Amino acid sequence: MFSVTILGNNSAVPTHDRHPTAQVLQTLDHTFLIDCGEGTQMQMNLYKIKRGKINQIFISHLHGDHYFGLIGLLTTLGLNHRTADLHVYGPAALKEIINLQLDVCNANLPYTLNFHSINSEEIIFEDKKMAVECFKVNHRIECWGFLFREKKNLRKIDPKKIKNYNIPTTFYESLHEGKDYITENNKLIKNEWVTVPVRPPKSYAYSADTTYFEQIIDKISGVDLLYHEATYLHALEEKAVNRFHSTAKQAAMIAEKAGVKKLLIGHFSSMYEKLDDFKTEAREVFENTDIAEEGVCYFV
Amino acid sequence: MFSVTILGNNSAVPTHDRHPTAQVLQTLDHTFLIDCGEGTQMQMNLYKIKRGKINQIFISHLHGDHYFGLIGLLTTLGLNHRTADLHVYGPAALKEIINLQLDVCNANLPYTLNFHSINSEEIIFEDKKMAVECFKVNHRIECWGFLFREKKNLRKIDPKKIKNYNIPTTFYESLHEGKDYITENNKLIKNEWVTVPVRPPKSYAYSADTTYFEQIIDKISGVDLLYHEATYLHALEEKAVNRFHSTAKQAAMIAEKAGVKKLLIGHFSSMYEKLDDFKTEAREVFENTDIAEEGVCYFV
Repeated sequence: MFSVTILGNNSAVPTHDRHPTAQVLQTLDHTFLIDCGEGTQMQMNLYKIKRGKINQIFISHLHGDHYFGLIGLLTTLGLNHRTADLHVYGPAALKEIINLQLDVCNANLPYTLNFHSINSEEIIFEDKKMAVECFKVNHRIECWGFLFREKKNLRKIDPKKIKNYNIPTTFYESLHEGKDYITENNKLIKNEWVTVPVRPPKSYAYSADTTYFEQIIDKISGVDLLYHEATYLHALEEKAVNRFHSTAKQAAMIAEKAGVKKLLIGHFSSMYEKLDDFKTEAREVFENTDIAEEGVCYFV
Repeated sequence: MFSVTILGNNSAVPTHDRHPTAQVLQTLDHTFLIDCGEGTQMQMNLYKIKRGKINQIFISHLHGDHYFGLIGLLTTLGLNHRTADLHVYGPAALKEIINLQLDVCNANLPYTLNFHSINSEEIIFEDKKMAVECFKVNHRIECWGFLFREKKNLRKIDPKKIKNYNIPTTFYESLHEGKDYITENNKLIKNEWVTVPVRPPKSYAYSADTTYFEQIIDKISGVDLLYHEATYLHALEEKAVNRFHSTAKQAAMIAEKAGVKKLLIGHFSSMYEKLDDFKTEAREVFENTDIAEEGVCYFV
């Protein structure tokens, strides 16, 4: 199961009690932070996100509303005596910004901060169960979307059937992955005798600040949940184009063409106090759309 | 009249719904921002501080809880189409940090940002009515306190008396400053005939992060209001010393020795959820002490 908790759903200027962009993606094994606008660590306090559990942070681009909260979070983790490695993925200049701010106060973080510069469309994080791939979007400056995808179907152990065999629990993870078991006496116990298929692999795409950009459709095709920015309503399409942003309608068109299962829209301009029209506009094109609301956890 | 509005009263890690350091000092003509921890612009929204009115920002030192909110505020002012010059006073490296973050996103602020590096104890801002002087405090890194002082007594025009003379309203500001008026017929109208003294000049001292440091006493002697940090209770005096901070008792001792009229203490460690003991401890040494509470405006 994936879940996405929205910590900020506003565009550049914080208003209407809305905050700049930050999201937490919870997967089976990971708590990923995606973008980190100013105030993200306070929003984590408010919504009971345990910041110590985050080991990977993905920054889409270097407009301040997507990263000004990062340095505060990194230093707070240090003051909280974190020792586990932390990995930050983002445009190369971010490393310089962070290091400069750590240097001026002679800060020695008690943990290792690994910075990974994003340079091209590729898998930037991978483990046994899932991979994170970045893809280019079209914004005023270099900007990356992120695709989080489970690798394969995990299988579930059937408690009634497993009782019939003497399989050590240390092999259970291999059973989840679909492997057969060979006993000490060379007897084959087929995986399907003791497990059942659970569910198809989950996927989540985060399409950061971007114009309407059909080149991403192949990348995000069929994902379970697509987050796409929708800074303006379509009445301001020209403004959206000029500022390298999208409208709610355009976000929905991308979702429709990519055949995603569900769409979440956010990054709303401070011009709009109420957000109802965003939902209405998007749903006319793509019915299964939700507004990204702060503090709300969306399950995939 | 001066007033100080507290936007953040916590030390480094934001907790207990308390925020990192930021204050707004309102004088007759100015809205000064003193320090600018992460989230300051959101706190301004919450407490109805008009950020556009701020023309001078003073940053005491480069620990993040005193300046991580600055870059967000500066860019927001740009997005709000500010055109008036803005002046930032702080340690030299702050300029490099700000410029690097503006450069990476090709930001062109629509206003002129004047950065003034603080290098020595001197008057760093001055106009007809008041001056701001910086003074050294004793912290782990370079750190400055700020003294805001009205220059002289302003006089108030007596509406009954002024009726007897034909003085143009354009001269009224000079009357406030104590000047006599000479009519077109070279007749002298003495200032004291038409004005009355109002009040002694106001003063406010902001003593930023510091150990107990008696060298500041001469600088802040007799001020109307002293803000002094009080990160710990005196039971943790050793911790305070090691971390270059003060206890509530020490802040009160400085206030007592400097003969200030009132003391405001803040920058409380996240260790403390309740703050009542800070008030009790300080008041045992210096009765006229208040806790700096967020959103509260203290009049001088």
